[in-house]
Amino acid sequence: MIALITDFGVGSLYVGVMKAVIAVAAPHVPIIDITHDIAPHDIAAGSFALVRAFDYIPEGSVIVAVVDPGVGSERKRIAARIDGRTIVCPDNGLLADTLFGHPLEAAFVIEYPSPASATFEGRDIFAPIAARIACGASLGELGAPLPDPQNALARHSKVPSPIANGSRVTGHVREIDTFGNILTDIRPALLPPGTRRCLVTIGARPAALAPLVRTYADVGAGDLCVLTGSFGGFKTHPAR
Amino acid sequence: MIALITDFGVGSLYVGVMKAVIAVAAPHVPIIDITHDIAPHDIAAGSFALVRAFDYIPEGSVIVAVVDPGVGSERKRIAARIDGRTIVCPDNGLLADTLFGHPLEAAFVIEYPSPASATFEGRDIFAPIAARIACGASLGELGAPLPDPQNALARHSKVPSPIANGSRVTGHVREIDTFGNILTDIRPALLPPGTRRCLVTIGARPAALAPLVRTYADVGAGDLCVLTGSFGGFKTHPAR
Amino acid sequence: MIALITDFGVGSLYVGVMKAVIAVAAPHVPIIDITHDIAPHDIAAGSFALVRAFDYIPEGSVIVAVVDPGVGSERKRIAARIDGRTIVCPDNGLLADTLFGHPLEAAFVIEYPSPASATFEGRDIFAPIAARIACGASLGELGAPLPDPQNALARHSKVPSPIANGSRVTGHVREIDTFGNILTDIRPALLPPGTRRCLVTIGARPAALAPLVRTYADVGAGDLCVLTGSFGGFKTHPAR
Repeated sequence: MIALITDFGVGSLYVGVMKAVIAVAAPHVPIIDITHDIAPHDIAAGSFALVRAFDYIPEGSVIVAVVDPGVGSERKRIAARIDGRTIVCPDNGLLADTLFGHPLEAAFVIEYPSPASATFEGRDIFAPIAARIACGASLGELGAPLPDPQNALARHSKVPSPIANGSRVTGHVREIDTFGNILTDIRPALLPPGTRRCLVTIGARPAALAPLVRTYADVGAGDLCVLTGSFGGFKTHPAR
Repeated sequence: MIALITDFGVGSLYVGVMKAVIAVAAPHVPIIDITHDIAPHDIAAGSFALVRAFDYIPEGSVIVAVVDPGVGSERKRIAARIDGRTIVCPDNGLLADTLFGHPLEAAFVIEYPSPASATFEGRDIFAPIAARIACGASLGELGAPLPDPQNALARHSKVPSPIANGSRVTGHVREIDTFGNILTDIRPALLPPGTRRCLVTIGARPAALAPLVRTYADVGAGDLCVLTGSFGGFKTHPAR
Repeated sequence: MIALITDFGVGSLYVGVMKAVIAVAAPHVPIIDITHDIAPHDIAAGSFALVRAFDYIPEGSVIVAVVDPGVGSERKRIAARIDGRTIVCPDNGLLADTLFGHPLEAAFVIEYPSPASATFEGRDIFAPIAARIACGASLGELGAPLPDPQNALARHSKVPSPIANGSRVTGHVREIDTFGNILTDIRPALLPPGTRRCLVTIGARPAALAPLVRTYADVGAGDLCVLTGSFGGFKTHPAR
């Protein structure tokens, strides 16, 4: 499987062309669009999407992650093997969340001699490289090993951590989804045992009291609630 | 074929992850996205999408329909065989339009012992169940038959009917599409024979006179018209 | 490969149903969505999308292009062989950009005796015809040759050309993409050799000085720049 995560926009021609390139070079490999609606150039959002999808993409797969404000510049291009999957991406922090908790097995700097557009390496470099790997190329064929890979890749790692201070827990909004859920990095274990209600403050908004529930159906439609999200973090719903 | 209808949003990671789960469990079954842009939690809109797509999804296919405000709660999960297709969905009225005119052949209540997220059963229950059915599992392996299925499923059936009263026909807006077409449930046979023009009233808007035509090209660009939609109902175009 | 370009909207049920029809009729042919987010009825935008995707769709493929304000009317339906690919589309100018620089090899008028909806020929005519061609049907089986095809198809050809007048180059905005890039038809060779900066005027906006650069990273985030796009034309970035 070749799984795709980009900020191109799901309806964009750029997605279609990248998939055509892959389909030609690796005709028997299924292509799965994970998401293309990362906010443009939002590397942290791309990193968060990647880590959430990661466990559902089977071992042996190739993941192409392109959120790349530095496209065409001297930043490196990476092929990293993490927990049995190979991720092909620019070296800009897209791996930050995934490196946090999954074993890095190898990382190579992609060398790409062919002429490529300076503005669309997703099509001209990352897609063909992913197809080659999916068809059996070893990472060593693609370039040289990245020295000290864990530290090299982690230098971009600005993933913040939530902080628990008594009954006060401060986390970070990682995404607001299509349903209006506010996804944070606060995990259930951070709340005091037996918590039934949370006083929720988001940025400068006034605090709102919200019950901690198991399902959306436990509160009325449109009522604020806090629950454990399907990827393990807490969600506050609805966003407004 | 496994066909998907959800309210996740076409660009959402939730769609991508659900498809990855299906691709792993049923690798040789094509996945077709019917639509993921049902308005969040709008069961009636999901039901209307399902019935319009139904005839174009071949017999033997599995349809996963997830518009599920009650996710994680005690509402049932259903696998229903209707007119040769198997639909996997929450028991909340998503089948209402489809049951109206297609034969219900069997319905089972899905029993799912595995731990599942209380907020994303599309990924954790409906997708794996659909994959199992597409790979040959019988519905009887999934759970117990739903007693009195026609009545049980139809209890949610709030599909309204249009009313003809002389030359006055009152129907319901079912969708406004990407072109601005207003799709209603009024069918051609309800209009008096020989109708050439309609006085159209939508909600509280002032009435507007619109010709009844065969194609959009029969009126000027942007002019209001009424025509038979490609799924059999009347459309009013454009929406404004 | 069957590649799709439409103005249905990427999230629309119309796309899903069209793909289901193709998947049933040509089950072993991969379907690639190039884009469905052409502005409704914007034939010039569809033509521009088609020409940009064209080189990335391999020879032997079928392209279905549906941007069709005249759906159901007497306008012709065309199957054209251009540079090894077959394009199935309404005869309304969608081929204009592609005919400009790629050899037209054959063109046939599609005859379609079956009853078809007057509002959704994408589903009822273009999709099944594309599937037949992808499964090996010859164009001659579909209808009669179009007389004088180059001129017949080119009569819609209103593709404007950029004009260079000394150091002043006047081109046309062809698209604004998901990143805010303004794509024009001005090609690098039109600029005077050694150009380093451009005074950019877009419509009635005040002129702005922008450096001519190779990559986005050559200017600060949000700063205006001009660069060669990945499909060969100049882009101005960002749009605002």
